[in-house]
Amino acid sequence: MNYSMIFYTLGCILNFEAAFMLLPAVVGVIFQEPSAVYLFISAAISAAIGTLLVIRKPAKKKIHAREGLVVVALGWIVMSLMGAVPFIISGYIPSFTDAVFETASGFTTTGASILPNVEALSKCMLFWRSFTHWIGGMGVLVFILAILPSAGADQMHIMRAESPGPSVDKLVPRVRQTALILYVIYFVMTMIEIIALFISGMGFFDAVCISFGTAGTGGFGTRVDSLMSYGSASQIIVTVFMLLFGVNFKFYYLFLCKKWKEALKSEEVRWYFIIWAGAVVLISASILKDIGDFGSTLKHAAFQAASIMTTTGFSTADFNLWGTLPKIVLVTLMCIGACAGSTGGGIKVSRIVLYFKQVRREVLSLIHPRSVRKINMDEKCVMDETIRNLNVFLMIYIIIMAVSVLILSLDGYDFETTVTAVTATFNNIGPGLGMAGPMGGFGFFSNLSKWTMILDMIAGRLEIFPILVLFTPSTWKK
Amino acid sequence: MNYSMIFYTLGCILNFEAAFMLLPAVVGVIFQEPSAVYLFISAAISAAIGTLLVIRKPAKKKIHAREGLVVVALGWIVMSLMGAVPFIISGYIPSFTDAVFETASGFTTTGASILPNVEALSKCMLFWRSFTHWIGGMGVLVFILAILPSAGADQMHIMRAESPGPSVDKLVPRVRQTALILYVIYFVMTMIEIIALFISGMGFFDAVCISFGTAGTGGFGTRVDSLMSYGSASQIIVTVFMLLFGVNFKFYYLFLCKKWKEALKSEEVRWYFIIWAGAVVLISASILKDIGDFGSTLKHAAFQAASIMTTTGFSTADFNLWGTLPKIVLVTLMCIGACAGSTGGGIKVSRIVLYFKQVRREVLSLIHPRSVRKINMDEKCVMDETIRNLNVFLMIYIIIMAVSVLILSLDGYDFETTVTAVTATFNNIGPGLGMAGPMGGFGFFSNLSKWTMILDMIAGRLEIFPILVLFTPSTWKK
Repeated sequence: MNYSMIFYTLGCILNFEAAFMLLPAVVGVIFQEPSAVYLFISAAISAAIGTLLVIRKPAKKKIHAREGLVVVALGWIVMSLMGAVPFIISGYIPSFTDAVFETASGFTTTGASILPNVEALSKCMLFWRSFTHWIGGMGVLVFILAILPSAGADQMHIMRAESPGPSVDKLVPRVRQTALILYVIYFVMTMIEIIALFISGMGFFDAVCISFGTAGTGGFGTRVDSLMSYGSASQIIVTVFMLLFGVNFKFYYLFLCKKWKEALKSEEVRWYFIIWAGAVVLISASILKDIGDFGSTLKHAAFQAASIMTTTGFSTADFNLWGTLPKIVLVTLMCIGACAGSTGGGIKVSRIVLYFKQVRREVLSLIHPRSVRKINMDEKCVMDETIRNLNVFLMIYIIIMAVSVLILSLDGYDFETTVTAVTATFNNIGPGLGMAGPMGGFGFFSNLSKWTMILDMIAGRLEIFPILVLFTPSTWKK
Repeated sequence: MNYSMIFYTLGCILNFEAAFMLLPAVVGVIFQEPSAVYLFISAAISAAIGTLLVIRKPAKKKIHAREGLVVVALGWIVMSLMGAVPFIISGYIPSFTDAVFETASGFTTTGASILPNVEALSKCMLFWRSFTHWIGGMGVLVFILAILPSAGADQMHIMRAESPGPSVDKLVPRVRQTALILYVIYFVMTMIEIIALFISGMGFFDAVCISFGTAGTGGFGTRVDSLMSYGSASQIIVTVFMLLFGVNFKFYYLFLCKKWKEALKSEEVRWYFIIWAGAVVLISASILKDIGDFGSTLKHAAFQAASIMTTTGFSTADFNLWGTLPKIVLVTLMCIGACAGSTGGGIKVSRIVLYFKQVRREVLSLIHPRSVRKINMDEKCVMDETIRNLNVFLMIYIIIMAVSVLILSLDGYDFETTVTAVTATFNNIGPGLGMAGPMGGFGFFSNLSKWTMILDMIAGRLEIFPILVLFTPSTWKK
């Protein structure tokens, strides 16, 4: 294990986090808020620890897959702990557990909150909270890869560990270029959303925070009622952008390169929109009688399906009050999630498509035992190793869900609350159902449950394996 | 597709079903019940249709894997439809849907009931209801294989399609001998339970019915309160026998052959008891404060964990009133299920063990990418084909669960009821939670939901693939 390289990378992460904290601090200065000072202090602490860790340049820069996984897992944990400092020292979230929960929920783009009233926060703290979504959405280490000059040939391990999806393609041969392209697309799309929301009548500060929440598919807002009290135009703009940020970014890259044909071949993107549209139809059909008006039914259904499927978690209606059918549809969407290579969470549409393809192959091979079939995706043959990894992903996904539900059930809340709280955090959605619904929160859970969900959020964001490797004893042997 | 052989086999099934119906009819005669006549009539109908189908001996006896799956799927559907006739014509269950639900629940050893009061049934009808469990437990086609002289070399397809577990071993080289050995063990163990229950103070009729329910891991009883009103001795005997019938029957066969060493090597049986014991501890710890007395806490916990894990579904307490933790433990046990090659349902312990082994292998290969690892079970290497099939099983299991929950959610009952009703029927348990709990039932669901659960019960009992192949269009092409 290349410890010096691990510490060095953690140092880089803390230095970058310090730099990130300066942005909300400046926002605080602009709004003349006293709480800005806590952000400056936190940034100083983060930079101090970070500098200590990077002082000694590692002799051996080479890292293996194992170290890539460990560094990503540790990086996200350290980042969440450090990011909680402003909330703690400012006194806005005095409990250590709660502050870490809120920050991990931010970086992992979950958006589950323990705050009973977000409007009590100062603007700079709200900004930091929403900014964590934007940072976490595309990944901190991917950001560092994009900025820092290439340090070796092994950065692919880091990129693979941090990027969602069953297989990570480099868009261009060099990892750094790929990371840079991804961040540029991400940045430009966020800017467009901010402008669009501002034009639609949303205040500039809110437009920025909501855009951060949309871009990272996070879901933290600036109001207690999420997006319920904004105008229809803003809500529709957010619907469109949530859907856009749930698409595999490779799709945009291919578009930018004018490879239209290859872009439109993407089975994942096709199924992503088909599943979303199906959910909208099912939800609309069952909430129409309650809402009455067809237009606003469609608006709410489209928004909520997009918000849950992209794992953003904004809400324009309290879907906890909807019937059982729309609830089940939403819980199903929570697990399916967005596209691989997007900022969204969940199992990911490409995995779901590959699960269905495997079922199809197995049934056909039962009917015609002698035929051999390969599984294709986007007209390319899927490697056995990818299939194996994605099948194991499903198993470990279920095991972690079951164990987490078991731990949360110690708190004794009802079945629906317990099950959906885990579903909503592990898949990085935000609100669940029951007491953890959009008008509820996560503050009432015990500390044990909160730490379980903190680990679930990070495991969900990193697609489990980095966290699993971190906690496997044989990682640390020899 | 060898249609003549399919019809011929269906005819055999109906003839055997007619013969089976004579047993409860005789019970009716002994108790001098007028309703016995309906059983005689049903037997006559079944025999008539069966005879029509077997009159023409098929020219080509050879069947392929595909036909084996189709015949098993169709056989179970036909059997459930025919078995419902006594309930319908006697007027005890006038609704066609309800009668088929009750019969399918019987044959698939689910034990979910639409009857608000089973004690209203005549003794011969109660006997038929419990007897369906015994028939379905080991499998009708396995029974036919055991009785009829071997008809060809391809019976393994049928046995494999009807027997639960990721891979079916023949105990002895000949299929017929294997089927016979299984049925003898099954019969003898049932007899021992009847005698033990009778000695413990249970009436003879009840002892027989309860033993049928235990042996098939079904769960139909003769009283409204399941096993709550019987003495502790009887409850403990049922606990022990439920556990015994959830063990892979190969284990008993090896014991009988005095291959102790090989028997004790079974990882599945070991994990089966470990999981059960773990569940007992968890449940006991959380219900102790409500029940107070340690002895009866342990009795209830041991009984309920055994009942749910073996997918029997008897109850000595209304576990729907227990806390969230024991409920979550029970729902987890529902999905895990019993051992492969037992009469129990669920995913099966051997599959669960193999899922964990795959996770372990994947994590280790992430840490040490260059090492190649095989998966072993009972010190034997597991074939890739078995692994592939068992992974696809998990996917299709989840897909069917999700679709079924979606359909049931149309009825608009609460989240807990909807989710656990599907879990309890698809895994062949019987009672779920909420309105479908041990003191509730399944009568209130809509017909659409009931038919969904009927298919779920049969799909669950046959481990999905036969039903899937039956409904795949390409099965019927060419």
